[in-house]
Amino acid sequence: MPERDLRYLADLAAQLRVDAVRASSAAGSGHPTSSMSAADLMAVLLACHLRYDFDDPHAPGNDHLIFSKGHASPLLYALYKAAGAISDEELLSFRKHGSRLEGHPTPRLPWVDVATGSLGQGLPVGVGVAMAGRRLDRVPYHVWVLCGDSELAEGSIWEAAEQAGYEGLANLTAIVDVNRLGQRGPTRHGWDTGAYARRMCAFGWHTVEIDGHDPGQIDYALSDARNVRRRPTAILARTRKGEGVSAVEDREGAHGKPLADAEQAIEELGGLRETIRVQVNPPEPVKEPDGVPHSPLKLPVFELGDDVATRSAFGEALAALGSARGDVVALDGEVADSTKAQAFADAHPDRFFEFFIAEQQMVAAAVGMQVRGWVPFAATFAAFLTRAADFIRMAAVSRADVRLVGSHSGVEIGQDGPSQMGLEDLSMMRAVYGSTVLYPCDANQTAKLVTAMADRPGVSYLRTTRGATPVIYDADEDFPIGRCRVLRASPDDLATIVAAGVTVHEALAAAGELAEEGIRVGVIDLYSVKPLDIEALRAAATTTGNLITVEDHWPEGGLGEAVLSAVADLGPRVIKLAVRQMPGSATPREQLRDAGIDRTAIRDAVKRLR
Amino acid sequence: MPERDLRYLADLAAQLRVDAVRASSAAGSGHPTSSMSAADLMAVLLACHLRYDFDDPHAPGNDHLIFSKGHASPLLYALYKAAGAISDEELLSFRKHGSRLEGHPTPRLPWVDVATGSLGQGLPVGVGVAMAGRRLDRVPYHVWVLCGDSELAEGSIWEAAEQAGYEGLANLTAIVDVNRLGQRGPTRHGWDTGAYARRMCAFGWHTVEIDGHDPGQIDYALSDARNVRRRPTAILARTRKGEGVSAVEDREGAHGKPLADAEQAIEELGGLRETIRVQVNPPEPVKEPDGVPHSPLKLPVFELGDDVATRSAFGEALAALGSARGDVVALDGEVADSTKAQAFADAHPDRFFEFFIAEQQMVAAAVGMQVRGWVPFAATFAAFLTRAADFIRMAAVSRADVRLVGSHSGVEIGQDGPSQMGLEDLSMMRAVYGSTVLYPCDANQTAKLVTAMADRPGVSYLRTTRGATPVIYDADEDFPIGRCRVLRASPDDLATIVAAGVTVHEALAAAGELAEEGIRVGVIDLYSVKPLDIEALRAAATTTGNLITVEDHWPEGGLGEAVLSAVADLGPRVIKLAVRQMPGSATPREQLRDAGIDRTAIRDAVKRLR
Repeated sequence: MPERDLRYLADLAAQLRVDAVRASSAAGSGHPTSSMSAADLMAVLLACHLRYDFDDPHAPGNDHLIFSKGHASPLLYALYKAAGAISDEELLSFRKHGSRLEGHPTPRLPWVDVATGSLGQGLPVGVGVAMAGRRLDRVPYHVWVLCGDSELAEGSIWEAAEQAGYEGLANLTAIVDVNRLGQRGPTRHGWDTGAYARRMCAFGWHTVEIDGHDPGQIDYALSDARNVRRRPTAILARTRKGEGVSAVEDREGAHGKPLADAEQAIEELGGLRETIRVQVNPPEPVKEPDGVPHSPLKLPVFELGDDVATRSAFGEALAALGSARGDVVALDGEVADSTKAQAFADAHPDRFFEFFIAEQQMVAAAVGMQVRGWVPFAATFAAFLTRAADFIRMAAVSRADVRLVGSHSGVEIGQDGPSQMGLEDLSMMRAVYGSTVLYPCDANQTAKLVTAMADRPGVSYLRTTRGATPVIYDADEDFPIGRCRVLRASPDDLATIVAAGVTVHEALAAAGELAEEGIRVGVIDLYSVKPLDIEALRAAATTTGNLITVEDHWPEGGLGEAVLSAVADLGPRVIKLAVRQMPGSATPREQLRDAGIDRTAIRDAVKRLR
Repeated sequence: MPERDLRYLADLAAQLRVDAVRASSAAGSGHPTSSMSAADLMAVLLACHLRYDFDDPHAPGNDHLIFSKGHASPLLYALYKAAGAISDEELLSFRKHGSRLEGHPTPRLPWVDVATGSLGQGLPVGVGVAMAGRRLDRVPYHVWVLCGDSELAEGSIWEAAEQAGYEGLANLTAIVDVNRLGQRGPTRHGWDTGAYARRMCAFGWHTVEIDGHDPGQIDYALSDARNVRRRPTAILARTRKGEGVSAVEDREGAHGKPLADAEQAIEELGGLRETIRVQVNPPEPVKEPDGVPHSPLKLPVFELGDDVATRSAFGEALAALGSARGDVVALDGEVADSTKAQAFADAHPDRFFEFFIAEQQMVAAAVGMQVRGWVPFAATFAAFLTRAADFIRMAAVSRADVRLVGSHSGVEIGQDGPSQMGLEDLSMMRAVYGSTVLYPCDANQTAKLVTAMADRPGVSYLRTTRGATPVIYDADEDFPIGRCRVLRASPDDLATIVAAGVTVHEALAAAGELAEEGIRVGVIDLYSVKPLDIEALRAAATTTGNLITVEDHWPEGGLGEAVLSAVADLGPRVIKLAVRQMPGSATPREQLRDAGIDRTAIRDAVKRLR
């Protein structure tokens, strides 16, 4: 590389460092030293290798740059300034009330694909974007992920390493900023870039070890990464945290705080100079896709009275949805035969993605694919979605539109025992910002809700049941999200039973038995657990004054508490039936009985009201 | 190995297979084929290498055997029968109502250390047990973990691989049953044991690749594993799923179901023969430890009116607890300087364990250490405990006594933004079976609650706050779990504000401001979110008829819904103040204001009641 270019890159890196120091100082908090270690890496990337149109962040040919080490946000924002995307004034609004430049990047900025800041997530999400590029978009954009060395301790990084190596994602590069210092002190492997290289190499990656402050080496490694075939590349770059400022360079105790003497630091970095405005390489011109094919939706039809598991209905509906819409994709955690997403795999193998037993990577890939406009449904056992809880939490911060499906919910699964039972999934999914939580009791209802999820913004969740339940709704009925279905109601009702999923059938049976004894009760099918049909619930609470909620879930945070939140101020008596003891193995019917959520328990609860 | 021994081992393996087939057939469900692949491995382990006293499962010198592939429970129970621990009759109670022999192993059986069945968890827990052996018990027991090949896709396995390799846990052996078939179909690497060996080797493990059906090779590998120094061992054993029965051997579609023709299968396996009763090698005699030293507890004392962060009080209290009790240990996810567990690290470095940024391994190790009677406290940011949600769920199934501490809860953290804010932790922790959820508002209260957690069974959780809050309680006050503290109450109260943590101070300020306007309100400090002081809450609900709950948490599943569950049937008006919009960056005070949970919001809510 010519001397003049090297000087330009060094000057640009100095500017990025200065801006990181300035932004953090203006904020009074932030991570300047973690930004400074990666400044040379990002300077060379921005000036020489990134292909991106900052005026058109959704251009299909744009590369993707994800800061997996989200705390290096001052560096990211300094890059945006160097690219002319934000002003110096906005840069200095960092971390202030109302600013788009949050402490950790979020998609409030149009150039940020996904929120980061929970470490170990940017790389798995990048794998999803790269998979979309290779297997869905079929566009040669490159995905660059800046990782910290500390975050390589996260298991999710190795799920990503395995997936990317296996897929041969040559369009993915992890740039690892090996600055040897974590938050609390030295990392496990310090500057032993070979330790990381051996691991990545074993997972099938191409690896390059470089001095992360040498623009020539960086340029070589980034070229290499763009050009290598059939393998993702990991650039292990040895760097110094706080590089360029002697007071903090490679020193412990300088993590996550502004520099004590910012003026002196800026002086040492060469002082404030005229802003270098980088002309970022444009993306390769890519024809805007024609739009994915859409054709009329032909949902499966289930006959009244037949016994059909809602998980089966989900699989068939998803396959039908995939036939009607070319943008729907399905992701599996090696349980598609159980969740019944297999039906989609059979019908649309090119839009079906297997992640084996790696739930974090599965959810992260769903987030990555929706970055590019795809409509992902990711399914596993409800219980195992807890494995990805942090990814689901961050999906909400990312304003991602992802659809999750949890099968084998509740004690209803029977013999397999508690390790396989989703008993906290309603609680987990309700407590996700902006989420939608659906729990159908019937196959036709399931099909309608699956369809509605495709257009639902945010994180939406469908809870399905393992065993077959009777079809009680006609195929032409509608089930809007945010509503419920009043299945039985009369002015003489002693109480209203509020149920969902498997307990709807128990509630109907109980109501029938009670009717024979002359006791009338209402039954509500609360298929939309979030948002709730507050009006209908309040009407029921007012009419009967007695609500009995029945859920195949722990008592905390599920259907019962959702209902309480909607009606408590009306003062009805609310009896909450839920799973209160740790189950063992037993038949589904024994489980429902032991948990006190079957027809007998409901009937007894009603009778105690008299 | 002499021919006679080989024949004995083959006969024993055949018996294990037959019993796995019989148990699954009697149950009508279960995983015989996944058991059959590992039968030779376990036969040789049981007969030749395991050191265990089945009559004394808590003998300190006992080896530990963990089935990370918990679905191979029929094999585990067949081993117990072969060891004389259970009868044939009990074996055939597998998966039946009331049986201890659940679909996946749980500690209802005295020889099971921890529940498994959520894949990828047994190895990280085994790492914790092995760390206890090496660094706490200092007893030469060996930890044997049977893994499936499918579960090596889980990131948690690689967190464990890194931790064990780094620690040089020579007392740990992973026996990987590479039967090449997952639930849905072939695994990623099939029979390429080298692919797994390269990965484990890169993480610092000693590896051995063998034919998993050859007793001589197995015996050699297990001896090697016991004898190798300074490194954990991974035995990559090539096996056939369903080995020994041609109808299912190495066939797809035979996962997780009983054999279609059990009689024919048993015939093919050599038929029912007289039961081989294995004389398991006894553990090395180890002196029962004298009991850990206990001395009087000297908790830190905080002065009324001082500003102290509850996270700091946690750190100091934990260090004091560690001085008083030699059985208390602390686990960190590379954030001890933030959670303030650093105080324990400084005082008791030999009982402080660093897991770097690997929250799943951190929680798993806590579960592993409590298997051996240690009293673990594991701390990270509240938000990042979501990373370990599935491990926390399974800790409850394991009936494990673990203490978790989440710092940086709520929007109160300020500038760092939503990725770092625990806003769903109360919901997540409440929905754990048998859990305790504590949320102190004051330093002295924190110290008392930390102390109480040490003796608390089950999963307990302490939520701490980043910023300093005034000390409002004397150091000699008591805060029993399951109670609350009524801070203000009068017969004229218009409402009672129910708060915890940071919102207690907002509630007190609001109450003071309202009093100046002549409006009286009560204030309850609900430091014990689970279990709840139902009596006190109901008294308040009855007296004032108006409750205002205030929480730095999403509206779902937290303090507000907990209170509702306790009082709803009394019909009070309950106003729930909680975080309802996605926060950005701002100062803590701006955050509380924006979320509508500060003193002004509380005051306004009270006034709207009039």
